Amino acid sequence: MIGGGQLARMTHQAAIDYGVTLHVLAATPDDPAVTAGAAHTIGRFDDLDDLVEVAQYGDVVTFDHELVPLGHLRALIEAGVHLRPGPEALGFSCDKLLARTTLDTLGEFRVPVPAFAPVSVVGDVEAFAGKHGWPVVLKGRSGGYDGRGVHVLDDLEGARRFLSDETSDPEVHWLVEEHLDLTAEFAVLLARSPSGNVAVYPPIATLQVDGICRELSIPADLPERIVASANRMAVSVIDGIDAIGICAVEFFCTRDGRLLLNELALRPHNSGHVTMEACRTSQFHQHLRAVLDWPLGSTDLISPAATVNIIAGPEAVDPLTRLPAALAVPGASIHLYQKSPRPGRKLGHVTALGSTVDEALATARSAAALLTQATFPTQPRPIEQGSEP
Amino acid sequence: MIGGGQLARMTHQAAIDYGVTLHVLAATPDDPAVTAGAAHTIGRFDDLDDLVEVAQYGDVVTFDHELVPLGHLRALIEAGVHLRPGPEALGFSCDKLLARTTLDTLGEFRVPVPAFAPVSVVGDVEAFAGKHGWPVVLKGRSGGYDGRGVHVLDDLEGARRFLSDETSDPEVHWLVEEHLDLTAEFAVLLARSPSGNVAVYPPIATLQVDGICRELSIPADLPERIVASANRMAVSVIDGIDAIGICAVEFFCTRDGRLLLNELALRPHNSGHVTMEACRTSQFHQHLRAVLDWPLGSTDLISPAATVNIIAGPEAVDPLTRLPAALAVPGASIHLYQKSPRPGRKLGHVTALGSTVDEALATARSAAALLTQATFPTQPRPIEQGSEP
Repeated sequence: MIGGGQLARMTHQAAIDYGVTLHVLAATPDDPAVTAGAAHTIGRFDDLDDLVEVAQYGDVVTFDHELVPLGHLRALIEAGVHLRPGPEALGFSCDKLLARTTLDTLGEFRVPVPAFAPVSVVGDVEAFAGKHGWPVVLKGRSGGYDGRGVHVLDDLEGARRFLSDETSDPEVHWLVEEHLDLTAEFAVLLARSPSGNVAVYPPIATLQVDGICRELSIPADLPERIVASANRMAVSVIDGIDAIGICAVEFFCTRDGRLLLNELALRPHNSGHVTMEACRTSQFHQHLRAVLDWPLGSTDLISPAATVNIIAGPEAVDPLTRLPAALAVPGASIHLYQKSPRPGRKLGHVTALGSTVDEALATARSAAALLTQATFPTQPRPIEQGSEP
Repeated sequence: MIGGGQLARMTHQAAIDYGVTLHVLAATPDDPAVTAGAAHTIGRFDDLDDLVEVAQYGDVVTFDHELVPLGHLRALIEAGVHLRPGPEALGFSCDKLLARTTLDTLGEFRVPVPAFAPVSVVGDVEAFAGKHGWPVVLKGRSGGYDGRGVHVLDDLEGARRFLSDETSDPEVHWLVEEHLDLTAEFAVLLARSPSGNVAVYPPIATLQVDGICRELSIPADLPERIVASANRMAVSVIDGIDAIGICAVEFFCTRDGRLLLNELALRPHNSGHVTMEACRTSQFHQHLRAVLDWPLGSTDLISPAATVNIIAGPEAVDPLTRLPAALAVPGASIHLYQKSPRPGRKLGHVTALGSTVDEALATARSAAALLTQATFPTQPRPIEQGSEP
């Protein structure tokens, strides 16, 4: 697995169950997968030599992020490495502009996405806002996550903070999107194997704050019709791009009644953490099954459940120091990533099962609050058009 | 943790969730905890220097077996090491004769055990059988597990295979027990922390074949009165011996209506594997909480469940080679220990949830059969008076 973050850490935990060894390419010995004991090589994901070296340890190579340069991925394929997913699918998930422009042509039907346009200069934003109105959402074409690279622009002055009137750079680095009035945000988590088998999880509601995923609940409280449409689109898209492994397809429901595909991630995903306790097969087990072309596991829900992320506050408290207090919350399953605390950093998550999603959420919030010393509002918050790959 | 077997392997998996590091004293680099990536020292559990070295890596020292010489444990305590449990409690679990003889005096009431006697020579067995009748059960005083050191003797000739008419050895190495006609065999799994908090799991039915635990189901189908008595006895015993950590207390129900305490193990236990999927807190998470004096977790049952052990047959097939086939069984959670296959060796286990125990058992048996190529009987088998620490 390229990358040694918390996704690799939890994939390693799942690999232990199957008696297989996950070897990770980690940036540092402090990476969460390395401190969890995964076999590892310390190196750089943008260094082809390091990628080639780590590839020799595995039957297949998979990813905990989408930052590997596409040229390197193609070179690995040429060297006979089994990449799962392959560069074409990965390119789709790491390039928002490519994703938006190709979704029209995929599958059996047009996949609806927010109105968008490529942006090079201030005038591109102005023209888009002239058609769709202010505010608009400016997004970096690639590399953005946890809200980084996503900006709500209220007017032309806002656009000037990021863009010039002219540019000589032929590369497009930004896209602009309509600002949506959202009523719901959810993810369809699903897996696809090289044999073409697909397994779809129950829909997962996601709550983003400042572009960072804060809370998840399963099953998302959505009309059956919406779930069926979203599942159909998600399967169509991952079939269309030949995705392999776990995929998370994020959807928006808008106040004007539209169901829009927002983004997709072709790897284990924050929204899927809730499956570790809530479903018969966790996303990490499922990812291993999919990339190794083993039969996919049952995605049946064991119980309604909720997950609250542990995000360091301004004081950057180490949640390990609060763990004993949080463990006193009955029924809270706590996962810490052994990351050094920095404000805004995801340091872990708490999942709880419940007879209802609300009951589960209350349990998970109690424990997460103790771990971060933050207080969690009990009232629903406004839904934000964040970015959460 | 002293020992690097599958119990240490799965404790390591749980430690990853809590963001703490489990350091194991393993016999070889192939030990299941080492191949799972646990931090480790390669050494001997009966070498005091190795024990002292590994103790420096942890705040507390705990165990995946009860084979460490008691003298070494006392030396560690004198050196200031926090052993959990301590040598007095461990001595109880590793010396069957001591356990049997002290159970009479523990707690608020006498704990019933099978009739027994210490054995040095053939005449001791003869005298015991004269009182209780043949057959009798001869057990090694310590070190026996998975049926090793347990022998059903039909007559005096049988006794002569293990014992002489005279001995000059002052040490007692055997005990003899009445042969019981069992109607049920089950374990009470519970945890106790240094603060004296205790958490008790629902009762777990165990099926032993040839002294090896084959199958588990939770909750055991027992009258409430029996469960209440067994729980009371189990709590009384672990309080009485000041046990710390997860404990498994095994009980017999006999055809003549007696509830008898068989054995106890003061560490994670095969019978508790089912809790990984079936309960809010797995035995491995609970063991960490208990030995670190953190609050104990909920033992609530999520669903009826069953576990089938994967035990190598005569062909000693590596279950990893059968894993893809077994993963096709929907709802089977498979755990492989990465142990080299030898006939009779436990190589992993399969757990399934179900709306009933029988449904869960059918699922787990299907997957386990595919992993071992063994066929599992669907009819209940006779219950055997095995030994399963």
